[in-house]
Amino acid sequence: MDTRTGLPVVGMVGGGQLARMTHQAAIALGQSLRVLSESPDDSAALVAADVRIGTHTDLAALREFAKGCDAVTFDHEHVPTEHIATLAAEGVKIYPGADAILYAQDKQQMRERLSALGAPVPRWRPVTSVEDITAFAAEQEAAGQGWPVVAKAVRGGYDGRGVWMLDGPGAAAELVATGTALIVEERVPLRRELAALVARSPFGQVAAYPVVETVQQNGICVEVLAPAPGLSEALAVEAQQLAIDLANALGVVGLLAVELFETEAGIVVNELAMRPHNSGHWTIEGARTSQFEQHLRAVLDYPMGETSLTAPAVVMANVLGGEPGGMSIDERLHHLFAADPGARVHLYGKQVRPGRKIGHVTVLGDDMTAVRARAVRAARWLQEGKE
Amino acid sequence: MDTRTGLPVVGMVGGGQLARMTHQAAIALGQSLRVLSESPDDSAALVAADVRIGTHTDLAALREFAKGCDAVTFDHEHVPTEHIATLAAEGVKIYPGADAILYAQDKQQMRERLSALGAPVPRWRPVTSVEDITAFAAEQEAAGQGWPVVAKAVRGGYDGRGVWMLDGPGAAAELVATGTALIVEERVPLRRELAALVARSPFGQVAAYPVVETVQQNGICVEVLAPAPGLSEALAVEAQQLAIDLANALGVVGLLAVELFETEAGIVVNELAMRPHNSGHWTIEGARTSQFEQHLRAVLDYPMGETSLTAPAVVMANVLGGEPGGMSIDERLHHLFAADPGARVHLYGKQVRPGRKIGHVTVLGDDMTAVRARAVRAARWLQEGKE
Repeated sequence: MDTRTGLPVVGMVGGGQLARMTHQAAIALGQSLRVLSESPDDSAALVAADVRIGTHTDLAALREFAKGCDAVTFDHEHVPTEHIATLAAEGVKIYPGADAILYAQDKQQMRERLSALGAPVPRWRPVTSVEDITAFAAEQEAAGQGWPVVAKAVRGGYDGRGVWMLDGPGAAAELVATGTALIVEERVPLRRELAALVARSPFGQVAAYPVVETVQQNGICVEVLAPAPGLSEALAVEAQQLAIDLANALGVVGLLAVELFETEAGIVVNELAMRPHNSGHWTIEGARTSQFEQHLRAVLDYPMGETSLTAPAVVMANVLGGEPGGMSIDERLHHLFAADPGARVHLYGKQVRPGRKIGHVTVLGDDMTAVRARAVRAARWLQEGKE
Repeated sequence: MDTRTGLPVVGMVGGGQLARMTHQAAIALGQSLRVLSESPDDSAALVAADVRIGTHTDLAALREFAKGCDAVTFDHEHVPTEHIATLAAEGVKIYPGADAILYAQDKQQMRERLSALGAPVPRWRPVTSVEDITAFAAEQEAAGQGWPVVAKAVRGGYDGRGVWMLDGPGAAAELVATGTALIVEERVPLRRELAALVARSPFGQVAAYPVVETVQQNGICVEVLAPAPGLSEALAVEAQQLAIDLANALGVVGLLAVELFETEAGIVVNELAMRPHNSGHWTIEGARTSQFEQHLRAVLDYPMGETSLTAPAVVMANVLGGEPGGMSIDERLHHLFAADPGARVHLYGKQVRPGRKIGHVTVLGDDMTAVRARAVRAARWLQEGKE
């Protein structure tokens, strides 16, 4: 409790853009987010009043950080579960808990648990050798697929890193030689990717957002379309129910983003994330309650906010850092504002590096095709300094 | 320019809730608002990363504050115009300029200038004695009105302070005896109050928001209805055009809020404000671009953002501090969230004192009557801890 305001203090471990946008939401709730940041120049550290410098693997730093926090949560999934469990045992309200976040940290545990729960997952296998992978490919072949197979690092992947398409035993051998703990999966014959976002409170209330389509390039999410165009009501409800069931079964507190493949046969779970998620940035303007406020409400056990859309069509496009040179980001912003006065811009205060997510743009309107074209154009302006 | 981000630095003089909400808008634009605050516990100082402690009447503090700012602006109108002029002469981009903000600081200068511009104003008179006031009342009597007359402090009034209804020479004598510089005005026979909000950039671009109705109690704005219900298109355009003309004529850079009386005969200017304004808080969720972002865009000479409504009916209700005792503000927030998951809450982190503005609630929907009832109920929950 902040004695100056009579309102709670939430601590977020990690100083990236997710903490930055959570701070914006905290301000509206009368709070000021406490941030544990690696560096004073991190995205959230540039804008938050209560910044502590430290690293998420340091238990002493986490313990010190948690003092005086009504709840502690995360802007990433890299805090060791043993530290989370230790703090929880010491009385810190830390969400999501170690038993839940494990499934966002470890793809093998996640696949095992989801299989046990009967959730739809791709055919998969933990592997430790080239022989394991080749055997899996042979089984795939029998099922009509064969090489390439998808290999994933059990831990630490994001934004396309930690995922490989193996086209044969040679590539498998190379990857196995790195010593990375791996699982392999079938290449799911997907129509497109979807995401179902829910938030769950300790009280057990769950709120579900409309299901969205996510568009990926090189493993990085570049666009999110809300609601997912042409998705049947039945499949939308199925995806929402799946996310709700998983949040309950895994005991998630806070946000749970379920990344899904849509196939001819239905939906399949790709990944889980337990924090504000890129597939939910559109909610800042596009939903009645943003995912960032919802996450705060969840970890503080406030009742959940309304999740309905504020416009018939909402598109979020990520802004990736472009090649150096040319117009400055500030000049690009001038041009974009002149070209599209209705585009909603979010810049993260990050140094521009090629391919790095440095911001996003959201456009709202009545027609998905028109809205999408505007969002893509706006993101391209900021990314490349031209249309 | 912030060398860490390549984006501009705006300094805002004053650490109240307007600076607090401007910081939220700055974060989206990749910036971090620099705040000159009287105390580290001020509303904006609790949440901003770059807070300097100092007072707005101290030229040396203002000069130091302005160093490294791409633009300097204000969360209130109390900075002495001579300081603003001095900083401008020294090369600081400080908006609105001394020649403009004068008309938001000094009601006599404002009335004289508006009269000279031919803008609709109430009958008014500068007064220095009881005789002046009695003579004005006699003229009013001849026009069919007589006592009471409205007296206003030339400088320093806000939220109903600095405004008096004088019911006769006795009250006039008492007020004159305080030595306050005064003007008197007719009691305008008003239907209701309106506000027209525009933003103007140094380039000269002006963007106008939909005209709203403001509902006052004891001189304090308690509700804002957007758009003003039942306002004719002709009168709405007239009010917007008036605000645009005034922004141009006075050379305002940033926001200009024109508070208006609607009478049988048309609109009459009540007050001017040159900063984010309570009558514009609804724009955070209710307009495509919030007034706070618009103000930043204006003082940085970015192109203006779209001002259209995001829903057919938007109502903002202020939350005033209630009597001490009963439920804590945090408990009240729990109850409100349970009662209305769609209400958008903004708390300012201020100590609760009876009658003090400590936050606001915004509700959006299709039907103004229903939306208004929800907003009033939500504000009452936070204010009184009950419906």
